[in-house]
Amino acid sequence: MKAVVYRGINNLRLEDIPKPHIESPTDALIKVTTSAICASDIHIINEGGQEPGKTIGHEYCGVIVDAGDQVRHFKKVDRVVGQPFFNCGHCLFCQQRQQTLCENGGLLGAFGNQGVQAEYARIPRADNTLRKIPDGLPDEKVIFTGDILSTGLTGVLRAHVGLGDTVAVFGSGPVGLCAVACAHLFGASVIIAVDIQDYRLDVARRLGAITINAANEEPVAKVRELTGGRGVDAGIEAAGFESTIRTCLKSTRRGGRVSILGSVTQPTPFDLSERFFDMFTLTIGLGDLNHMEELIRLIHHGQLDLGLLITHTLPLSEALRGYEIFEKKLEGCIKVILKHEGSESQ
Amino acid sequence: MKAVVYRGINNLRLEDIPKPHIESPTDALIKVTTSAICASDIHIINEGGQEPGKTIGHEYCGVIVDAGDQVRHFKKVDRVVGQPFFNCGHCLFCQQRQQTLCENGGLLGAFGNQGVQAEYARIPRADNTLRKIPDGLPDEKVIFTGDILSTGLTGVLRAHVGLGDTVAVFGSGPVGLCAVACAHLFGASVIIAVDIQDYRLDVARRLGAITINAANEEPVAKVRELTGGRGVDAGIEAAGFESTIRTCLKSTRRGGRVSILGSVTQPTPFDLSERFFDMFTLTIGLGDLNHMEELIRLIHHGQLDLGLLITHTLPLSEALRGYEIFEKKLEGCIKVILKHEGSESQ
Amino acid sequence: MKAVVYRGINNLRLEDIPKPHIESPTDALIKVTTSAICASDIHIINEGGQEPGKTIGHEYCGVIVDAGDQVRHFKKVDRVVGQPFFNCGHCLFCQQRQQTLCENGGLLGAFGNQGVQAEYARIPRADNTLRKIPDGLPDEKVIFTGDILSTGLTGVLRAHVGLGDTVAVFGSGPVGLCAVACAHLFGASVIIAVDIQDYRLDVARRLGAITINAANEEPVAKVRELTGGRGVDAGIEAAGFESTIRTCLKSTRRGGRVSILGSVTQPTPFDLSERFFDMFTLTIGLGDLNHMEELIRLIHHGQLDLGLLITHTLPLSEALRGYEIFEKKLEGCIKVILKHEGSESQ
Amino acid sequence: MKAVVYRGINNLRLEDIPKPHIESPTDALIKVTTSAICASDIHIINEGGQEPGKTIGHEYCGVIVDAGDQVRHFKKVDRVVGQPFFNCGHCLFCQQRQQTLCENGGLLGAFGNQGVQAEYARIPRADNTLRKIPDGLPDEKVIFTGDILSTGLTGVLRAHVGLGDTVAVFGSGPVGLCAVACAHLFGASVIIAVDIQDYRLDVARRLGAITINAANEEPVAKVRELTGGRGVDAGIEAAGFESTIRTCLKSTRRGGRVSILGSVTQPTPFDLSERFFDMFTLTIGLGDLNHMEELIRLIHHGQLDLGLLITHTLPLSEALRGYEIFEKKLEGCIKVILKHEGSESQ
Repeated sequence: MKAVVYRGINNLRLEDIPKPHIESPTDALIKVTTSAICASDIHIINEGGQEPGKTIGHEYCGVIVDAGDQVRHFKKVDRVVGQPFFNCGHCLFCQQRQQTLCENGGLLGAFGNQGVQAEYARIPRADNTLRKIPDGLPDEKVIFTGDILSTGLTGVLRAHVGLGDTVAVFGSGPVGLCAVACAHLFGASVIIAVDIQDYRLDVARRLGAITINAANEEPVAKVRELTGGRGVDAGIEAAGFESTIRTCLKSTRRGGRVSILGSVTQPTPFDLSERFFDMFTLTIGLGDLNHMEELIRLIHHGQLDLGLLITHTLPLSEALRGYEIFEKKLEGCIKVILKHEGSESQ
Repeated sequence: MKAVVYRGINNLRLEDIPKPHIESPTDALIKVTTSAICASDIHIINEGGQEPGKTIGHEYCGVIVDAGDQVRHFKKVDRVVGQPFFNCGHCLFCQQRQQTLCENGGLLGAFGNQGVQAEYARIPRADNTLRKIPDGLPDEKVIFTGDILSTGLTGVLRAHVGLGDTVAVFGSGPVGLCAVACAHLFGASVIIAVDIQDYRLDVARRLGAITINAANEEPVAKVRELTGGRGVDAGIEAAGFESTIRTCLKSTRRGGRVSILGSVTQPTPFDLSERFFDMFTLTIGLGDLNHMEELIRLIHHGQLDLGLLITHTLPLSEALRGYEIFEKKLEGCIKVILKHEGSESQ
Repeated sequence: MKAVVYRGINNLRLEDIPKPHIESPTDALIKVTTSAICASDIHIINEGGQEPGKTIGHEYCGVIVDAGDQVRHFKKVDRVVGQPFFNCGHCLFCQQRQQTLCENGGLLGAFGNQGVQAEYARIPRADNTLRKIPDGLPDEKVIFTGDILSTGLTGVLRAHVGLGDTVAVFGSGPVGLCAVACAHLFGASVIIAVDIQDYRLDVARRLGAITINAANEEPVAKVRELTGGRGVDAGIEAAGFESTIRTCLKSTRRGGRVSILGSVTQPTPFDLSERFFDMFTLTIGLGDLNHMEELIRLIHHGQLDLGLLITHTLPLSEALRGYEIFEKKLEGCIKVILKHEGSESQ
Repeated sequence: MKAVVYRGINNLRLEDIPKPHIESPTDALIKVTTSAICASDIHIINEGGQEPGKTIGHEYCGVIVDAGDQVRHFKKVDRVVGQPFFNCGHCLFCQQRQQTLCENGGLLGAFGNQGVQAEYARIPRADNTLRKIPDGLPDEKVIFTGDILSTGLTGVLRAHVGLGDTVAVFGSGPVGLCAVACAHLFGASVIIAVDIQDYRLDVARRLGAITINAANEEPVAKVRELTGGRGVDAGIEAAGFESTIRTCLKSTRRGGRVSILGSVTQPTPFDLSERFFDMFTLTIGLGDLNHMEELIRLIHHGQLDLGLLITHTLPLSEALRGYEIFEKKLEGCIKVILKHEGSESQ
């Protein structure tokens, strides 16, 4: 079958590899129908994080084609959307509903686990990892619920966005835009999006945000101006750069809440004494996956629509072109969707 | 000054009465600029609940014209919108933020307290009772935050409406419509409005609800049909009739939450054994007043708009005509606003 | 094997019946080491609720002796304590963590499901139904976590007992006493226990409650006296009689919360109009099972001990004598434990 | 009157100064009956933070002897315990119940505000700043509710300590010991206290903690050993040293919550990238003052007792000796109480 294979740093190839099969009784095998390229995939390609020879990708929809003996909740032909992480459902962390910390889990398409940018994919712990797609809802509508939309929602939840709150989201990439959309679900009164790309800010605006282009105006001053001089109640960081984190911290009011969603992989020192008298809460880490069902339901009933994020749709056979467009932000790219159907083979 | 005076059951008059003045150091005197007629006013007129000779009305905006020595937070010329209840801010109930149960408080325009449908009104405990109106925001935008919008919000909060929940609101009068609008602020996926008047259901639909006309179709069956056969997660009753309460209870799923906002003044027996094996939560009572600031902020920033409810605007001098229109639901009436400005006198 | 078999109303027998075996791949087979007699068992014996010829009982500890292919989290020799209800873990109700409403579940020892008062028991949905017992912790310490302690905790959670609250528990039977113990875990300032049996009130007192013997003094008046005239913040009903429910409702302050745990199987009318102006919340239904792990942990670390409830320990062979003691409240009985070990046979 | 006066760094004197009087209509004048010495007082003496010539102290009980015209809730002869901070009750921060951030407030005994270690003290914003002491409850029982007990409670609340959680408190000074006591009010299963002074750990043990003397054993390893190798769910830092903060961060499990209560006045860099893949929440800042009433109620009903902290009781006239004992931790000192009664003068 066709698959996007990681061959080492900056070496990604579309190759023919053997089709996977059920290895454990809790596995499901899916025919992948749609996948999406994520910034984490770019991290892996540029910096490592996958075994050479393995496929990448962790945002996906598909159809069940086989299932292990212990898979209870899915059967052949079920359409599914999945978590990027598989998790055991039973360890202390799963009990706390912190699946990305699961002691027996892992990230698809990374650290030796096969990914989903292939015609077929083996999904471990299928009962926990997958969710059914309601009839009639196309893949494109729900594919983001597994990763970027759950992550954006996590940012909003961890920043305790509540009725009447002012919120600023730093970074209008896919995760930041999802956070903007989710802030509306909790009664925020003002949602500010900060980025340096006008075409992304334009989408933020269409999702209901007031926008600040940080290339043109000083964002901290502008956020304060929009919030009576105090800063926002909730700051959500969705870029992961030291500078964005700093801007986010400074834009959040005394006593406010900061949630960092961007991957903080570089040393990012923060002096705790700076904020002692200002009191604040900071949460950092990967997104939780507790609300995929609710997100799917909201999308199904027309209360949430992230369709604006899909700027490019390509066949799996053009995945490498998709990666180039996504990484270089060509042609106003926000999110690239790969359709696997037309690329079928044995 | 001109005032709407209760003279006994079914005897309401527009009269000239003396202008009120500061009686306690915590009072403010306001020139009322806008008031609204509430279903509670109709209850009082039809069934009693005010001392004959006293004014009625408890939904209002105005301008501060005088303030007692202990009023700290308001000064002359401030524009304000107010709670229907005044409360001490210090008793056990106020500490619990249950202002309508205040041991030292009361309802304006009822039980011997002068009301606000007059050119001027004395507002007790002004620091607790009033909220500032942001510059540039007209009275019509915020007047409902004191009573019906706070009540609608309370229904949503007490029914614990949360992300992805299905909600049904029984009764599309002013409070029910406010509950529909507020359910959107908490991430509900499906909001169903039930009433028997098409023109009211039409407004519910414009506020984002799926509608059921209970005169034309059996509402319990229809609600179940819309919710996979189970009933809604949260049922909000906003009419107060035994039949509506029963419909609400039956339309809410096992393990769901019911919040009753309608005034339950007639005996309404409910057999607890009916629901023991179905587990559920029922909350009943007057609305809380904890979120007027947040509601004003949401309106100010365009996230909430109840303008559709205002079907009639009349001068104070035509208050009695307003009462007739409101009570008889003439001319597609939902809410009657009285403008006090043009009716000035000494 | 020996088992307590329901043979029809008021007809319970100790019989030899065939040993159960794994029927479904999600089953576990346990050798029951300890069981307890519950008031629900008495309901079944007196009023029906089990198929004649089936065993009863749903409070138990045991050791895994066999497990179906799909049981992931337990293996032979594991010591376990179990839920009275088995549940699928996947339906809408399980997703809401309302296991007793599971669309695919059931109560052990009732409605045709075999019970646990036998030498061996088949436990459906073992991964969901069972919890491991930490090494060194005897059955007697944890057996109540499955039913009566989880139920008592549910009452406290549903009544939203929080820091500094006053609480009254009506009924000092096993569930009521568990509620008293749990109220301490949420920072209650005053915990009042009401019953008519001094020996039960004595246990309540040793668990930290102020006690009222309703046979000797009017409980509503006394509760109000103990709470500044207002009534308690949280009322928990743990008897299920109309009179106790009425006392509980009257003893709870305006704006307070009532949680009904007692089985309300007889018509119990409640007039909603009585409480409209008093505002309150009422929750009714079977206990949730979300916190067995936490309860076991608290017991393990010495923060919670319900040992005082065990007034009688008998071998399984004397189960019928145990039922008589329990039902007639002989010899100061609160809870009867059956030890299954000595009664072994093939 | 006699007062403890700050005369510059390391220069504290007991002097005769003029008695204060009501300056604003919201002031109360109290005769201070009891005060306590706080670590913040030592900070001020050693590093500045008060105007020379002004009194210090902010932990106190007293009796109302005079009250301004706008004081509504207190009258002469009322016994009171007070917040260390006075606050307006109306600004955005007060609305958020973050009184220590009040835009119109301040800390008694610091930054130019007169303190309470004097025979009389003027208390600004008395309605917000003071709480009544129930009849019969001695000052010593409630004096800590204003500062150290509210701070300890804040640490527990901000670390979201809940049912069955494991908690470690780093530093067994007065605030740390209060956090230990409060963790019991939220159902913690394991409470670990870490310090290097055996006599303080002894008090922690008597308050229900497992103790670690970090001078004798490596605390991170020991905490992990006590928590199944993972670290605690909730880490509370109550010392403010970089090393203690680091130990706290390392002792808290992935996905856990850290609350820093210690005054972080020295640069304390923390690299956010260290914890990104571990996910966690960190809250820092002064304690909230939202639960003084509840704490007083818990003490009044015998559910909470911090009497063990009072190791020294001296007359106000020996305040300087008290400061020496407290600062140098002489004679097993934890907390020094000053009794103002015997030191009366005009």
